[in-house]
Amino acid sequence: MTISIAHLGPAGTYGEMAAMAFSNKLSQVGQQSFLCPYPSITQTLWAVSQGQVNLAVVPVENSIEGSVTITLDTLWQLDILEIQTALVLPISHGLISLASIFEEVKTVYSHPQALAQCQGWLEKFVPQVQQIPANSTTEALEYLERDRSAAAIASQRAAELYKLPVLAYPINDYPDNCTRFWVLKKGCTEIENSALELIINTIDKPGNLVFTSLGFTVPANVPGALVKPLQVFAKREINMSRIESRPTKLYLGDYLFFIDIEANSNHNYVRVAIEELKTYTKVFKIFGSYSLMAIN
Amino acid sequence: MTISIAHLGPAGTYGEMAAMAFSNKLSQVGQQSFLCPYPSITQTLWAVSQGQVNLAVVPVENSIEGSVTITLDTLWQLDILEIQTALVLPISHGLISLASIFEEVKTVYSHPQALAQCQGWLEKFVPQVQQIPANSTTEALEYLERDRSAAAIASQRAAELYKLPVLAYPINDYPDNCTRFWVLKKGCTEIENSALELIINTIDKPGNLVFTSLGFTVPANVPGALVKPLQVFAKREINMSRIESRPTKLYLGDYLFFIDIEANSNHNYVRVAIEELKTYTKVFKIFGSYSLMAIN
Repeated sequence: MTISIAHLGPAGTYGEMAAMAFSNKLSQVGQQSFLCPYPSITQTLWAVSQGQVNLAVVPVENSIEGSVTITLDTLWQLDILEIQTALVLPISHGLISLASIFEEVKTVYSHPQALAQCQGWLEKFVPQVQQIPANSTTEALEYLERDRSAAAIASQRAAELYKLPVLAYPINDYPDNCTRFWVLKKGCTEIENSALELIINTIDKPGNLVFTSLGFTVPANVPGALVKPLQVFAKREINMSRIESRPTKLYLGDYLFFIDIEANSNHNYVRVAIEELKTYTKVFKIFGSYSLMAIN
Repeated sequence: MTISIAHLGPAGTYGEMAAMAFSNKLSQVGQQSFLCPYPSITQTLWAVSQGQVNLAVVPVENSIEGSVTITLDTLWQLDILEIQTALVLPISHGLISLASIFEEVKTVYSHPQALAQCQGWLEKFVPQVQQIPANSTTEALEYLERDRSAAAIASQRAAELYKLPVLAYPINDYPDNCTRFWVLKKGCTEIENSALELIINTIDKPGNLVFTSLGFTVPANVPGALVKPLQVFAKREINMSRIESRPTKLYLGDYLFFIDIEANSNHNYVRVAIEELKTYTKVFKIFGSYSLMAIN
């Protein structure tokens, strides 16, 4: 069996780079796989939930711009996806254009997150430009062929793929710019081939840090309603590496919470903690226990 | 003195509607004011921090799409702005186009938040369209004059202002769609005219709920580091109405937290709580105590 991997396309996006990194890891253990680009993150996640593909690779969080909220919201909604592993991709943007000097550039296209990550550089070196959002960093490249005064912010790899010149690199304001991705499968299905198991087991070796991602809502208007769930972990010295609130979309001020703890939900003391946690929450979901995969 | 109020422009944005609502409130107490549109939220906040205007009105949070992260990040960075009041604006989108029927529409332009808020409606009624992000709901209207197959998602007021027909209304997926705005001034300056004081005092009447907005970072990699700050309020039965995490932009997994508590920082027991809170945080900032202003 060849494993199919959905990601945000088209070719040249950072999503594709993350999916390729995972695909390479699979081939190292003798497992073939191929990539399936989708036009949006929602469609990428729907594809795996409906069984069109075996796996999906989606961005969760960037070190500068924060959570990718569409990923969290869709994960909560779909309710049947399970995180297999996480990987962190360094992000390094270039200014890509057919213009020969900065002064010729009049417009810069890119994904809003990429524009935001280069704000300082743009203001310093091309203060004259109009910034225009695009659906992906790669989509931004479409504008360059027909307009020499247009530039796009995307990866060096995207510039190579589309045979376009890089005018400046790197242009991100913060050098330590990286994005965390999740690799997900449909929770109720088993991928027949054991290669996935194998690679997951290789990552989940003793001594490696294991994360568990959870989502929940708490009773409304109760002082300290969020403190009790957090105390469950604090009193057991379980570190919480992340907390993120999202609107329930029911009314303003009603939230759901996503947390990552540094613990494996298969361990008994974590199971007990989770059972206690459930008594303080209204809706509770567990998205999986997994380790961070090194990229090489 | 006439009070100047910065907001995200151009005319017809929801930011302008919020600024107008506040301006009307000022005129009810005999205070004249005028609006100053800025091309981005960052520039709106910079304008007030640099004394170009007296006040700024900016979106903080939408009931469907969540935090307006650029507002939180800029507020943390500028460090000198003080929240005067908050107001909640109902958001109701229309599909605006020169096309005569849905089938003619090929592209839909709007601010990404507005596109996201109408996703279900778009998929149901105009599944054939390509969705293209714009910098503001009003900017999206620019495309309509030259292209009958283009549509924009914006307010009814924007359609009236630009004399464009509304093809469908309302088209937001969730009926209870609203955005909270903050009215801010520079913390160290006094607005000479007492009308602002007057209106703030009118809002801050006894019995009205007062919120205090805080931001802080906690020591890294300490289990339960976030629990202690939250316990400070929980043990005093002070309700926390909101918590939001944002990346510090230093490295992945390092966060700062924004919380809103339902309490007035001028009251003694709250002062004591805040002093205790400071002992558990690395960087601590207070953005103001304020009440919610009713719009009428």
